[in-house]
Amino acid sequence: MKEEDKLSPWKNKLHEIIYEADTPMGKLFDLILFFIIIFSVILIMLESVKSIDAEYHYVLLTLEWIVTIFFTIEYIARIVCIKKPKNYIFSFYGIIDFLSTIPLYLSYIFVGSQVFLAVRALRLLRVFRILKLVQFLGEASHLKSALKASRAKIIVFLFSVLIASVILGTLMYWVEGDEAGFTSIPTSIYWTIVTLTTVGYGDIAPITPQGQFIATVIMLLGYGIIAVPTGIVTAEFGRQNKDKSNDGEPGRYVHVNTQSCPTCSKEGHRDDATHCYNCGALLNE
Amino acid sequence: MKEEDKLSPWKNKLHEIIYEADTPMGKLFDLILFFIIIFSVILIMLESVKSIDAEYHYVLLTLEWIVTIFFTIEYIARIVCIKKPKNYIFSFYGIIDFLSTIPLYLSYIFVGSQVFLAVRALRLLRVFRILKLVQFLGEASHLKSALKASRAKIIVFLFSVLIASVILGTLMYWVEGDEAGFTSIPTSIYWTIVTLTTVGYGDIAPITPQGQFIATVIMLLGYGIIAVPTGIVTAEFGRQNKDKSNDGEPGRYVHVNTQSCPTCSKEGHRDDATHCYNCGALLNE
Amino acid sequence: MKEEDKLSPWKNKLHEIIYEADTPMGKLFDLILFFIIIFSVILIMLESVKSIDAEYHYVLLTLEWIVTIFFTIEYIARIVCIKKPKNYIFSFYGIIDFLSTIPLYLSYIFVGSQVFLAVRALRLLRVFRILKLVQFLGEASHLKSALKASRAKIIVFLFSVLIASVILGTLMYWVEGDEAGFTSIPTSIYWTIVTLTTVGYGDIAPITPQGQFIATVIMLLGYGIIAVPTGIVTAEFGRQNKDKSNDGEPGRYVHVNTQSCPTCSKEGHRDDATHCYNCGALLNE
Amino acid sequence: MKEEDKLSPWKNKLHEIIYEADTPMGKLFDLILFFIIIFSVILIMLESVKSIDAEYHYVLLTLEWIVTIFFTIEYIARIVCIKKPKNYIFSFYGIIDFLSTIPLYLSYIFVGSQVFLAVRALRLLRVFRILKLVQFLGEASHLKSALKASRAKIIVFLFSVLIASVILGTLMYWVEGDEAGFTSIPTSIYWTIVTLTTVGYGDIAPITPQGQFIATVIMLLGYGIIAVPTGIVTAEFGRQNKDKSNDGEPGRYVHVNTQSCPTCSKEGHRDDATHCYNCGALLNE
Repeated sequence: MKEEDKLSPWKNKLHEIIYEADTPMGKLFDLILFFIIIFSVILIMLESVKSIDAEYHYVLLTLEWIVTIFFTIEYIARIVCIKKPKNYIFSFYGIIDFLSTIPLYLSYIFVGSQVFLAVRALRLLRVFRILKLVQFLGEASHLKSALKASRAKIIVFLFSVLIASVILGTLMYWVEGDEAGFTSIPTSIYWTIVTLTTVGYGDIAPITPQGQFIATVIMLLGYGIIAVPTGIVTAEFGRQNKDKSNDGEPGRYVHVNTQSCPTCSKEGHRDDATHCYNCGALLNE
Repeated sequence: MKEEDKLSPWKNKLHEIIYEADTPMGKLFDLILFFIIIFSVILIMLESVKSIDAEYHYVLLTLEWIVTIFFTIEYIARIVCIKKPKNYIFSFYGIIDFLSTIPLYLSYIFVGSQVFLAVRALRLLRVFRILKLVQFLGEASHLKSALKASRAKIIVFLFSVLIASVILGTLMYWVEGDEAGFTSIPTSIYWTIVTLTTVGYGDIAPITPQGQFIATVIMLLGYGIIAVPTGIVTAEFGRQNKDKSNDGEPGRYVHVNTQSCPTCSKEGHRDDATHCYNCGALLNE
Repeated sequence: MKEEDKLSPWKNKLHEIIYEADTPMGKLFDLILFFIIIFSVILIMLESVKSIDAEYHYVLLTLEWIVTIFFTIEYIARIVCIKKPKNYIFSFYGIIDFLSTIPLYLSYIFVGSQVFLAVRALRLLRVFRILKLVQFLGEASHLKSALKASRAKIIVFLFSVLIASVILGTLMYWVEGDEAGFTSIPTSIYWTIVTLTTVGYGDIAPITPQGQFIATVIMLLGYGIIAVPTGIVTAEFGRQNKDKSNDGEPGRYVHVNTQSCPTCSKEGHRDDATHCYNCGALLNE
Repeated sequence: MKEEDKLSPWKNKLHEIIYEADTPMGKLFDLILFFIIIFSVILIMLESVKSIDAEYHYVLLTLEWIVTIFFTIEYIARIVCIKKPKNYIFSFYGIIDFLSTIPLYLSYIFVGSQVFLAVRALRLLRVFRILKLVQFLGEASHLKSALKASRAKIIVFLFSVLIASVILGTLMYWVEGDEAGFTSIPTSIYWTIVTLTTVGYGDIAPITPQGQFIATVIMLLGYGIIAVPTGIVTAEFGRQNKDKSNDGEPGRYVHVNTQSCPTCSKEGHRDDATHCYNCGALLNE
C-alpha cells in the first residue's frame, strides 16, 4: 500500500520543481512559467489588433501553437507527478489550466469555436498561483482581510445604491424619454449608475431642464456617498494598523532607547532608567 | 370593549403571517413576496424595452395583471387583519403599497394615465420592509447612524458646493457663451456640477482658452474637496469603531483619575468626586 | 465730541435691525433679505434662459428693478446708520454690496455694459453674511479649520499635480498631435487635468495606441493620488474628533450612567458605584 | 595636491551663488532662475499654439534664444565652479539641465529634430531643485514618506487592478465587438481602465444590453475599490499624525505594565523586567 502511495523518484523531483518554489530549479521553473504566461497574454492581445494580425498572422499563430504545446506538456506533467490527480484536475487552478489550454485545439475540431479563443485570457489568473508560491502577496492578504472585514457593510451599501439606481433610473426614463437616449428603463438605470459612480460617459445625457436637475441631484449624491465605501475601508485599515501596533494588547507604552546594559548586554531600556531591567546593574549615563 | 379589540383567530393567524417573520409560514410569505416584488420590477423594466414589448406585449401584460391582483389581495389582507386599519393605510409603507398597486387599474379608467405606470417602480421600496423584518439590515443601521452623525457637516458642505457652483456657473456662462453649449446660467450651473463632481459627460465642454482654464480650476477644486465628505464620514466611522471597542456599551464617559480612596483603596474616581463611589468615605483633596 | 460719536436713536434702531440679528425685527429683516437675495439670483438665472427672457422680458426687468431699488435703499441705509461709513464701504461685504447693485444702473448709462450684469450673481455671496449672523455656520467653521490645518499639504499636492500635468501634457502633445484634438500644449495640459481628476469629458481623447497607453498611466495615477487629499483631510478630521472627545486631556475614561444620587441629586455615577461621588451617600441599586 | 583641490576665490563665490541659497546673492539668483524657468515653459506653451505662433513667431524665437543662451551660460558656470564637474554632469539635475538646453541648437544642426523641442519642457523639473534649496518642500517630504510607507500595498493594488482590467477588457471585446468601438483587446483594456477609474471619456461606450451590464459591474467595482488606495494612504497619515503626537520623538516603544517596584514604588516596568529600572531592586514575579 505504502509503495503505491509513494511517487517514483523522478516524479518526486518533478513535483518539487512544478509545485514548489524552494529549490533553485523550482524557482527557475516558476520564473519561466511567469514570463511565458505574460508572453502568451500579449500574443492574444496582438492577435486581436486587426492591422497586426493581418501582417503577422502566421508568426502569431506559430508562437501561439508553441505556447499552447508548452502549456499542454505542463498540464500533463502536473497530472503525472501528483499522487491524487483528481485533486489537481478539479481544483480551481486545474480548471483554469484546462480551460486556457484547450481553446486552440477546439478551434480546429469545431468550426465556429474561434469565439472561445478569448477564454485563453484566463491564463492570466495562473499568474496568481506563481505569485502565491513566491510569497509576493503578503501585502495582498492584508488588503483582503480589510475588505473581508468590511464586506457586510459594502454589500448593504451596494444594495442600497442599486435600489436607488432603479428608482432614479425609472424617474429619468419618465422625465427624459427617447430623445435624450433614455430609450428604456434598463438603459436609464445604466445611465444612472454611470452618473452615480461619476464615470459620466456622455453617450446619454439629459437635455430637459428637469432632467438636468435630477441629474445634478444624482451627481451630488454620488459625489457624497463615495465617502461611504471609503470610510468603511479606511476605518478598517485604521483598526488593523492599531491592532498591529500593540499586538492586540491594550495598555501603556514607553519609549525605549538603544542603550545596552554594560553587565548583561540587554537592550531596550526606558529613557529615564538608571538600572537594567534584567539584571539590576547600574546603567551608564 | 375588549372583545372588539381582539381579532378573530384566523385574522390573528393572517396577521402573524403577513406582518411578522417569526413563524415558518411568516418567513415563507416574506420570501415569496420578496421574489414577486423583484419579479414585478423586472416586468416593468422589460415592458419599457420597445423590442421586447413589441414581441411579448400580451405575455407581459398578463403577468403584470397576475402580479397586480396578487398585490391587491395582499393589500386588502393587510387592511383586514390589523386592528386599526388607519395605522397601516396612512403609514409610509401603506401609501407605497397603494401607489404601486393602483396604476394598472387607473390606466384602464383614465385614458392617458399610462404615464403613471412608472409609479409602479415604487414597489421596490417594499423590499426594505421585508429586509427589515428579517434583520438583514443590521449593518445598514450602522451606516445610517454614521451618516446621521455627520449630517450637519454634509449639509453645510453641499450648501457651499451649490453656492460655488452658481457663482462659477455664471462666470462660465459669461466667459464661454452659446457656442460651447453654455446657453443659459442654469445650464452653466448644471455643467459646473457635472465638472465639480468629476462626472464629466462632455455634452458641454469649454472651447475658449479662458473657459478651459476656469474649467481646470473647477476640476482641481472638485478633485480636492471630494476629500471633505470622505473625511467627515471616515472620521465618523473611526469614532464609532472606537466607541464600539469601549465594550460595545453606548453612553456617557467621564474622565477618572488615579486617586485612590483612603478608606477602601478603590481607584478610578471622577475628577470632581469628593466621596469614594465604593465606600462613601471622604476623598483627599 | 462724544455727542458726535453717538448715533441718533432712530439710526441706532436701524443699525440694530440691519447689522444684528438678536431682536425680532433684526431676525425678520435678515429673513426677508435672505429670500430677496435668493429670489434675485433666480431672476438673473431666468433672464439668461433665452426662451423665458423672450416671453417674460418686461416682467423680469420690472422685478429686477424692484430688487435693485430695494438693494440700493438697503445700501444707503447701511451707510447712514453706521458711525464710520468707510469701515463698511471698503469692507469685503461693502464692496460686494456695491458691485452687485450697480450693474443695472450702469447698463443704462454706458451702452455695451450689459455684460457686467453677470456681476450681480455676486449677490449670492451676501447670503454668507446673513448665515454668519444667525450662527448657522458652526459646522462650517469646523470644516474650515480642518481645511486650514491641512492647507500647506494641499498646496504642495496641487503644485505637484500641476507640474506633473504640464510634463505629461507636453508628452501627450508630442505623441498624439492635432488629429486627436491635442492642438497645443495648453490644450494638452487641459486634457491631462481633465483625465487626472477623473472628470473625462471625452471632447479630446487619445487615438494612437501609445497615447492610450500614456492616458492609462495618467488615469491610474489620478485614481491613486486622489487618496492624498482625502488622506490629508481625513487624518485632520480624525485628529480634531479625538481632541474634542477628551478635551485635550489624556487619561482613562469610565462609563457613567444616568442614575442620580437620592441625597444630593448629582448625576454621572460609575456603573459599579455604591456611593455618591459627591456626598458619599448610599446609592440605590 | 591640496592647492589643486581648492577653487579660486571667484569660483568659490560663484559656487556659493549658484549652488547655495544662504547668501542674499544666492537667494536672488535662485529667484531669478525660478522666474526664467517658468517664463521659458510659458514660451514653449505659447509656441505650440498655432494662432499665436503664426503672429509672434519671431518674437517668441528671439525670446527662446535669449533664454537658451542664459541657460547655456548657467550650465557652463555650473561646470566651471564645481570641483568635480563629473559629479554634476552625470547627476540627475545635470542631465536635465543638458537635455533642456540642447534642443534649440540641435534644431539648427539636424533638420527634422524640431520634434525634440518638446524635450525643453523638462526645464520644469529644474524648479524642484530651487524649491529644495529654499526649504519649501518640508510638507512634501511628509507626503512622500506616507506614500513610501504604503508603496507595497499600492503596488499590489495596482497590479490587481491591471489583471482585472485585462480579463474584463477581453470579456468586453468578446461581448461588444467592433461596432461599439471595442476594436481590439488593447483598446478594450484601455476602455476598462477608463471606466474603472471613473474617468469615462465616452469615446467608446457599450451599446448592447450585456455590454452595458458588464460596464455597470465595472463601474460599481471602480467606485468601490477607489476606497482601497484612499484607505491605505489615510491610515498611513493617521499613523504618522499619531507618531508625531508621541512627542515627535521617533524610536521604539515597549509595553509597560502597572507593576510597581517593591523598593522604590516606581511604576512603568517592561513586561519582561526582573529588576527596577530606577533602583535596581528585584521585582516580584
